Amino acid sequence: MASRPTPERSTAILLISCPDQPGIVAAISNFLFENSGNIFDVDQHVDPDENAFFMRIEWGVEDFGIERERISAAFTPLAEKFGMDWELHFSDVLPRVAIFVTRDNHCLYDLLSRYESGELLMEIPLVISNREDLRNAVERFDIPFHHIPITKENKAGQEKKEIALLRDNNCEMAILARYMQILSSQMCQAFPHKIINIHHSFLPAFPGARPYHSAFKRGVKIVGATSHYVTEDLDEGPIIAQGVTQVSHRDSVKAFIRKGRDLEQTVLSRAVWLHINRRTLVFGNRTVVFG
Amino acid sequence: MASRPTPERSTAILLISCPDQPGIVAAISNFLFENSGNIFDVDQHVDPDENAFFMRIEWGVEDFGIERERISAAFTPLAEKFGMDWELHFSDVLPRVAIFVTRDNHCLYDLLSRYESGELLMEIPLVISNREDLRNAVERFDIPFHHIPITKENKAGQEKKEIALLRDNNCEMAILARYMQILSSQMCQAFPHKIINIHHSFLPAFPGARPYHSAFKRGVKIVGATSHYVTEDLDEGPIIAQGVTQVSHRDSVKAFIRKGRDLEQTVLSRAVWLHINRRTLVFGNRTVVFG
Amino acid sequence: MASRPTPERSTAILLISCPDQPGIVAAISNFLFENSGNIFDVDQHVDPDENAFFMRIEWGVEDFGIERERISAAFTPLAEKFGMDWELHFSDVLPRVAIFVTRDNHCLYDLLSRYESGELLMEIPLVISNREDLRNAVERFDIPFHHIPITKENKAGQEKKEIALLRDNNCEMAILARYMQILSSQMCQAFPHKIINIHHSFLPAFPGARPYHSAFKRGVKIVGATSHYVTEDLDEGPIIAQGVTQVSHRDSVKAFIRKGRDLEQTVLSRAVWLHINRRTLVFGNRTVVFG
Amino acid sequence: MASRPTPERSTAILLISCPDQPGIVAAISNFLFENSGNIFDVDQHVDPDENAFFMRIEWGVEDFGIERERISAAFTPLAEKFGMDWELHFSDVLPRVAIFVTRDNHCLYDLLSRYESGELLMEIPLVISNREDLRNAVERFDIPFHHIPITKENKAGQEKKEIALLRDNNCEMAILARYMQILSSQMCQAFPHKIINIHHSFLPAFPGARPYHSAFKRGVKIVGATSHYVTEDLDEGPIIAQGVTQVSHRDSVKAFIRKGRDLEQTVLSRAVWLHINRRTLVFGNRTVVFG
Repeated sequence: MASRPTPERSTAILLISCPDQPGIVAAISNFLFENSGNIFDVDQHVDPDENAFFMRIEWGVEDFGIERERISAAFTPLAEKFGMDWELHFSDVLPRVAIFVTRDNHCLYDLLSRYESGELLMEIPLVISNREDLRNAVERFDIPFHHIPITKENKAGQEKKEIALLRDNNCEMAILARYMQILSSQMCQAFPHKIINIHHSFLPAFPGARPYHSAFKRGVKIVGATSHYVTEDLDEGPIIAQGVTQVSHRDSVKAFIRKGRDLEQTVLSRAVWLHINRRTLVFGNRTVVFG
Repeated sequence: MASRPTPERSTAILLISCPDQPGIVAAISNFLFENSGNIFDVDQHVDPDENAFFMRIEWGVEDFGIERERISAAFTPLAEKFGMDWELHFSDVLPRVAIFVTRDNHCLYDLLSRYESGELLMEIPLVISNREDLRNAVERFDIPFHHIPITKENKAGQEKKEIALLRDNNCEMAILARYMQILSSQMCQAFPHKIINIHHSFLPAFPGARPYHSAFKRGVKIVGATSHYVTEDLDEGPIIAQGVTQVSHRDSVKAFIRKGRDLEQTVLSRAVWLHINRRTLVFGNRTVVFG
Repeated sequence: MASRPTPERSTAILLISCPDQPGIVAAISNFLFENSGNIFDVDQHVDPDENAFFMRIEWGVEDFGIERERISAAFTPLAEKFGMDWELHFSDVLPRVAIFVTRDNHCLYDLLSRYESGELLMEIPLVISNREDLRNAVERFDIPFHHIPITKENKAGQEKKEIALLRDNNCEMAILARYMQILSSQMCQAFPHKIINIHHSFLPAFPGARPYHSAFKRGVKIVGATSHYVTEDLDEGPIIAQGVTQVSHRDSVKAFIRKGRDLEQTVLSRAVWLHINRRTLVFGNRTVVFG
Repeated sequence: MASRPTPERSTAILLISCPDQPGIVAAISNFLFENSGNIFDVDQHVDPDENAFFMRIEWGVEDFGIERERISAAFTPLAEKFGMDWELHFSDVLPRVAIFVTRDNHCLYDLLSRYESGELLMEIPLVISNREDLRNAVERFDIPFHHIPITKENKAGQEKKEIALLRDNNCEMAILARYMQILSSQMCQAFPHKIINIHHSFLPAFPGARPYHSAFKRGVKIVGATSHYVTEDLDEGPIIAQGVTQVSHRDSVKAFIRKGRDLEQTVLSRAVWLHINRRTLVFGNRTVVFG
């Protein structure tokens, strides 16, 4: 794993949200045009009901008229003029990501397989688990595995440890890959809109525990999975991606679980891909996804 | 509309549910075999957790060894031996169906188009509405239209009228094609598991009123529609069919509604097709669908 | 049908394609900004491999700084500077559309139902058919029905008649709603990228006649439908929309056809909606769909 | 990996196909009933056009009236009477499977993850590859990796080696997990309907090489993946499972490939699950899938 895959080209990515008003697009376009920005991709959205403007714009950083260290400063006046919330990212600065797991291996393997193939361009400095089950699976990939068991009594302290581990490893974000623990608010607040969870139902149907059992009991004909940002309200955070698949009376709860696993891993990996490619914006409790 | 489409062949259809035990299939098979039954279709299902057995079996009625009037009597001993709940239908006896509408025309037209083409083999002796909006649409098809307005005050009496109308027209069932009134329990009890509704969400998510608005507000990435049997618990009846479609941040509530309409009409018509082809069995609050 | 539904607001819509180069977005944005254009929706796309730029932009026409009659002239210099292919439409000028049918009614009814409800904002001055079967269905909606039978011998002449009918009725486009005749090149050339067809397979699989029979024979597990612009190469035109649904060994050819009908009508109506809302651009043999 | 997951219960599974005639179901039911067979699952299908009968029946082997070694002999007279093609399997005799790979790791990891979790109950005595790329990925799972490079010149000989390896390892079947070599007829004939491939398109659309590039060029709006039994006619074998996902003009060929990978691994693993659970029957060039 000495030489990890790298992005094809070095780009700068701006993610912008602000109140809508005439002239925003023209101003941003001119900013890039005047500095010889070679735009690779631009996507924008106006929510007329909320009078909100959203944009993702990606351009080549190497031949840009402003050095990468100075882009933020150069853009700030324009951002202030329009009251923008904004983030600037560079495609060649890979996000450092902690993965949390418990016992199920399918989401973990799916992430690791895409990580190894270079589809998910990120660093994984560590995996954290409240159980030992998946140590072997993780260490096979030469990734450090941290066993941090959680009980009601030690939860606050153990989470502090986890936050420290993420900070020490410069992780900007975390993925809960079927991590079977509810995060406390200290954890949620430490990484706001930076923790991605997969819930094994089509939210808002069947929040909480054992959704497949509930879905079976209700007699649904379709089951789903939902990937969302973790907030303090369990299973209520902004949704990034959802997937569904058909079931029938022939499917037992076990079959629901088996079919659902396919969804969970696919939906989670899609959400992670969107996030680390800086294609998601949170607005209120919804997301704008430049897919 | 003088000569309505008729089924290709005359068949008898048995729908059976009973506690599972060895020998059921052998007994039914022998019953048909000994009377020269030419089986066209058989489908069965065992729910091991509930120890329940379900079967749908369809055979030619014309060359069967027992006359159609005497099949019930001939089958009764076997049914009693195994404690069966059972129904016997004939494909050439078309179900008589009342359709309830309010203002939206898409489900109505979809049903009428399939009725006219012969895909939905049923009789529609009447359409009932609490508004006048769709009178013209219905009468174009030479189907009597009954305007029965409902207020909180007159509801009980008006529903009595509706029940009488259905009885007078020998309707065995009803379809709520975006009928914007909640049925009272007298109506539900008059036609148990014989009234099919379409709800414009992926139940159990977003029950009740304005589901597209709720779905939009929650920021879901997929919307759905659910067709179910009406019971006294609103939106809680056994689900027959569900469908879903993708939405994104680009979709306004209006777009949710527009995309949802495609689902509503398709899912409702599929549920109706399944029911009138005697392919559904209710078991507790779930359905077995021999699709 | 005296008062047909009208659009909510009067907008101007520009559809643009041109070689990509820096400054296009800035130029267009400035053009609108300087004339107080209130942008409702903008969507753009750059195809880096083809170096092609595509845009759809929609703004309010009532308070725009340029009168609607003069917008074209005012935009022309900018369009010429960037070598644009462009179209200007107004949402309150409803497209006039001819529908062609043969015998199947489902796509026809689906279109008429959406037309009547105002989902499809268009005028339908006439329906043309090579058979009489659907006359009644059409005339119910107070739309003139023209029976123009086609044989190998009379085809060229009859198509001339059809073209004349469309011209006389100021139809800018046509919809083939399961019209079972192959259009000759004179017809295709008369309305380039203005005739929308529905093909009852997932193209390019199963082009030509009897696709459901071929799909059944091949043993596929999913069937589809494809809506595309008609070109002289049968079933080879630019695809606008596709849909699919699952099938199994339990499904006969007849079931394939029945399930396929749901797709055909939904996919065709979606494609028509996209086209008449000026959300499609043809580029080579592909489409850009601002969905 | 010392203790691999085992099936929950020991069952016998009969897969039967034969010409349809009255009395088959009764005969089989009686055979099991008379020997105290506890049926867990039964599914059957009649293809009326082909006059063909198909059945899968699964029952408990431990309390069955006939010892497992003698079931075949006991069933043979009945099978001969009805001219059956039949197979008898036991759920606790895990199939031994060889996996073939080349360079892409996603299908491999998906299979290994499901193998490790016990979802895919099978033995994997070896992985074969024409390249070295995935050695490390395989050996991590303590599975022997065989590098057997193939050139036009050495193909016949190398395939002989592969067949010998499979025979030596008692492999009854093989999975081509994005194995980028066309099997010759000697290989196909050595394992008829026992080699499962994943093709990265919605067959029969885009057979052969580089299907995503072809799909992109054709401008499709949906891409697919197809898992099928390998026959001597490339990409023409009986289809077991298919999946699809939406694409748009925003998706480059690279995005088609990325989205397709999700399908490939899911569809392949589903097909393998169906096969090793003895839920597939080949009939002509189609499959009956008791899903």
